[in-house]
Amino acid sequence: MAERARRIPEATVARLPVYLRCLLELAEAKIATISSERLAELAGVNAAKVRKDLSYLGSYGTRGVGYDVEYLLFQMSRELGLTQDWPVVIVGVGNLGQALANYGGFTDRGFPIAALVDADRAKVGQKVHGNVVRHIDELPAIAAEVGIAIGIIATPAGAAQEVADRLVAAGIASILNFAPAVIAVPPSTSLRKVDLAVELQILSFYQQRRSGSIAVGPERAAN
Amino acid sequence: MAERARRIPEATVARLPVYLRCLLELAEAKIATISSERLAELAGVNAAKVRKDLSYLGSYGTRGVGYDVEYLLFQMSRELGLTQDWPVVIVGVGNLGQALANYGGFTDRGFPIAALVDADRAKVGQKVHGNVVRHIDELPAIAAEVGIAIGIIATPAGAAQEVADRLVAAGIASILNFAPAVIAVPPSTSLRKVDLAVELQILSFYQQRRSGSIAVGPERAAN
Repeated sequence: MAERARRIPEATVARLPVYLRCLLELAEAKIATISSERLAELAGVNAAKVRKDLSYLGSYGTRGVGYDVEYLLFQMSRELGLTQDWPVVIVGVGNLGQALANYGGFTDRGFPIAALVDADRAKVGQKVHGNVVRHIDELPAIAAEVGIAIGIIATPAGAAQEVADRLVAAGIASILNFAPAVIAVPPSTSLRKVDLAVELQILSFYQQRRSGSIAVGPERAAN
Repeated sequence: MAERARRIPEATVARLPVYLRCLLELAEAKIATISSERLAELAGVNAAKVRKDLSYLGSYGTRGVGYDVEYLLFQMSRELGLTQDWPVVIVGVGNLGQALANYGGFTDRGFPIAALVDADRAKVGQKVHGNVVRHIDELPAIAAEVGIAIGIIATPAGAAQEVADRLVAAGIASILNFAPAVIAVPPSTSLRKVDLAVELQILSFYQQRRSGSIAVGPERAAN
């Protein structure tokens, strides 16, 4: 896989997990092949985009038959790096950190929670979902010990930048930020952000249209 | 506002919360005007798209000056329905439900947690962040009482569809699903989904490229 040289656009990368989820459901339902039209429908994009996206993986399907679900699943998993585990450290063991530590979906999908750290010494030593909370000062040691691939920031906003700096200093190259704060990282670090309020704001847009507008019908506004 | 008839594309709607966040930061930093180029940079999209998106709000900026931050903020908030509160019910008071209940960011941004419900009678009566957990059977009564606008599903995957059906039956027209399950709702219901593993899968894509590939440099892969 080291020879892979194709550049995949960022927007395509962001859609791969969506296709992956659809394909997993198809595989579970014992469906062997899928057309780009049907996959597009399931993923909520248009069929031409699906074909273009999949062509980046070297997958073109068979005319009149479609794509082989199992093979596409294999290609997608390989492309996303899901054929191996990526150990995760969660920084901040408040409610969100604990919820994330308990969220089975991470380990199941190749992101085992390998460590939990917190700056609060009162939390150090507590056991959360099988992991003993360690102090954030131990981060470099933990990263070296366990081979942490991804750091999750689950602290309050005010601490997020310092935590990011510490993750980078510990050699952790991928960061997922749940704190409601904009943080800066060096260009060699991958940074993604989850803002839990964004989806609510999108819903309130449609909700307002539905309740206030006479020109936009609810069916159309909801789609 | 009831006369608003412009159709705003779904993709534009999904970007409005991102612009909103950028504008809030600019306003906090006492920055009065912003060019489309700078806003594009902050939001991570291209400038032509920013101009197009903002034109749907009836905002065109002033040549050589840009957009008035405060006014754009007002327009954006109004468009997203954020000039009023949208009470939320969280269904499922496990770790994730509790984390969401405790996540201050919702109330701050106009989405007060008005109720918590669970199917587990052992949880009913417990107090979480000021709310007493009630039984899910009370959902229709709660919805009528408090005027719930949005239901958040924070249950295990297996319960998600039944919960969605109950939210719809209780007259709640917007649903945010955190459960790792695909659910179906009537076309008159708005449904959004948060999959916490998607962002990790995107990070593992870049992480793998970085560690395995010689053709794609980490700087480019991370951007």
